[in-house]
Amino acid sequence: MTMRPLVALAMGDPAGISPELTAKLVMLDDIRARCRLVVIGDRRVFEQGAHVAGVSPQLKTVEQGADLGSEDGDALFVDLGHLDPTEIEGGTASLAGGRFALANYRHALELGRDGRVDAVCFTPFNKQAMRLARADYDDEIAFSAEVVGLKTAASEFNVLGRLWNARVTSHIPLRDVASRMSSERIHRALALTDGCMRKAGFARPRIAVAGLNPHAGDGGNFGREEIDVIAPAVTVGQRDGIAAEGPFPADTVFLRAKAGAFDAVLTMYHDQGQIAMKLMGFDRGVTLLGGFPFPICTPAHGTAYDIAGQGIASVGASHAALLLAAGMAAQKSQVNGVRASSVTGR
Amino acid sequence: MTMRPLVALAMGDPAGISPELTAKLVMLDDIRARCRLVVIGDRRVFEQGAHVAGVSPQLKTVEQGADLGSEDGDALFVDLGHLDPTEIEGGTASLAGGRFALANYRHALELGRDGRVDAVCFTPFNKQAMRLARADYDDEIAFSAEVVGLKTAASEFNVLGRLWNARVTSHIPLRDVASRMSSERIHRALALTDGCMRKAGFARPRIAVAGLNPHAGDGGNFGREEIDVIAPAVTVGQRDGIAAEGPFPADTVFLRAKAGAFDAVLTMYHDQGQIAMKLMGFDRGVTLLGGFPFPICTPAHGTAYDIAGQGIASVGASHAALLLAAGMAAQKSQVNGVRASSVTGR
Repeated sequence: MTMRPLVALAMGDPAGISPELTAKLVMLDDIRARCRLVVIGDRRVFEQGAHVAGVSPQLKTVEQGADLGSEDGDALFVDLGHLDPTEIEGGTASLAGGRFALANYRHALELGRDGRVDAVCFTPFNKQAMRLARADYDDEIAFSAEVVGLKTAASEFNVLGRLWNARVTSHIPLRDVASRMSSERIHRALALTDGCMRKAGFARPRIAVAGLNPHAGDGGNFGREEIDVIAPAVTVGQRDGIAAEGPFPADTVFLRAKAGAFDAVLTMYHDQGQIAMKLMGFDRGVTLLGGFPFPICTPAHGTAYDIAGQGIASVGASHAALLLAAGMAAQKSQVNGVRASSVTGR
Repeated sequence: MTMRPLVALAMGDPAGISPELTAKLVMLDDIRARCRLVVIGDRRVFEQGAHVAGVSPQLKTVEQGADLGSEDGDALFVDLGHLDPTEIEGGTASLAGGRFALANYRHALELGRDGRVDAVCFTPFNKQAMRLARADYDDEIAFSAEVVGLKTAASEFNVLGRLWNARVTSHIPLRDVASRMSSERIHRALALTDGCMRKAGFARPRIAVAGLNPHAGDGGNFGREEIDVIAPAVTVGQRDGIAAEGPFPADTVFLRAKAGAFDAVLTMYHDQGQIAMKLMGFDRGVTLLGGFPFPICTPAHGTAYDIAGQGIASVGASHAALLLAAGMAAQKSQVNGVRASSVTGR
């Protein structure tokens, strides 16, 4: 009986740094101590990644459908046997690469959905390749919700050490941001952020809410959304017991959060948070898909086609992603009074 | 005959850190070596600032209208004699405070307009106080253009060490940003940035242009402004000999600029640049009003009412503002083949 959470690690785009990152991750002692990895991919692609990374990981290949929970020891490998690495040109988005990543991720999500793993992680995808494999591929949230059958709200969080960033709108044109905002939507985002952070171990996360306009509207001189839409949502959140404050000017709220005044910043649009989070720690940032029955984490950076195959890619953000997923899974089992991976016969 | 540029330093809001900053600045040896300061304010307010700062600056008071250029030696003080500091409550915006700052700034601008100083700097204003003093006070650009009689385009630049940030739109609601953008407007901003940076000594400034939408529109999936509006403006700029590149995703362009790939980033809206620049150096950021016949600089931070009167305010950004103004003034006289402050009978 193992007391470590089981974390499925889906191999991402094979033309980028994902294979070498995956191989490096399997070797890390603190990852081994905190969780048990189940790598999903093709063993040949993995071995090539290990070669690039200059490591020789030992992990046992198991059949699809094998009882993962009963396995003791080190990481496992679920070999889908679906990609010969010689078919892939390094640094190039391709249909084959997209299909590979999509199949791995789908398999990992299904393991999560069926309660056979406690968390899911993946190394970076290439959006262009994903779209070649599936024309209507929008983003990870939509795909994951479909596979898992999620009917409730989900959201992307960016996590840097102890600081979280959530957003009210995401992959939409900037021109549409203001009209998409509503007090209800902001309040939902606040509640989702509060809920996810509690699941990650924050007793009462302190959430700063960013304004939309320059100088948070300067008292209505540069826009009224702060007064008409954001402030009312903060007030409702506070009544619900959420430690929310704001709206604050977006150009200084991250300075305050960085100094420790807040655990999270809720931003109104994509770049408002991403500019800050990437500047504060591009190599350490983690993306968490929140709102799912299990944590889903990935490094915030991309496939880094420019340095793929050189063995120089930093494992920092992927490492942080695995630790966050493992930590949230462990927290969940503590709350539930039972470790998912210790259930007999699983 | 002095070879140092004359820099008018207008005292800002008297209820914040401006008086103590002004007094500290006068004491700095490298400022003295690079320019000759002409402080504009009320001597009593200045002396109180010196007391708070714990310094004892020696500077000669001259009459309004005195021949500044013929004066040798250290800093000068133009005493407008218009504010008794006991009338000011520290940390509070007031009509008296706004009138004080506005009068000082107007006087400094007039000295610049009349060619009696080579550059203008000011310690922070409080916007609320400025509006109490003048209901239609919008921002420093509009006021300065009015006093100087400027008819051509002016723009605010943020400067952090060697990195510049300019923006296409500024103090307007985010909801209006996309509709205010045009290729002409972006091209004008590019040309103004290029021109100002050349005046500051860059031989051929490398200017990165930010996108508007998340992931710079992701090839049109998240908005088309990059394709329809921004890229054409970059092309025209390049044809004009400007070393412009882009549009680049806003959430990584500053990482590249910080690493030295660019000298400037042209952003599409206020917070896109401000979030990054403040995170990279809140205590060192300088705001430059570009497009005027003489440089106008100020620290990017505000009046800091919360720490006013304690003598702990950092002089870093004000120091950098003075050095930038002095450097640009010196560069201009070099280009013109004559030092403005060395003109006889000035």
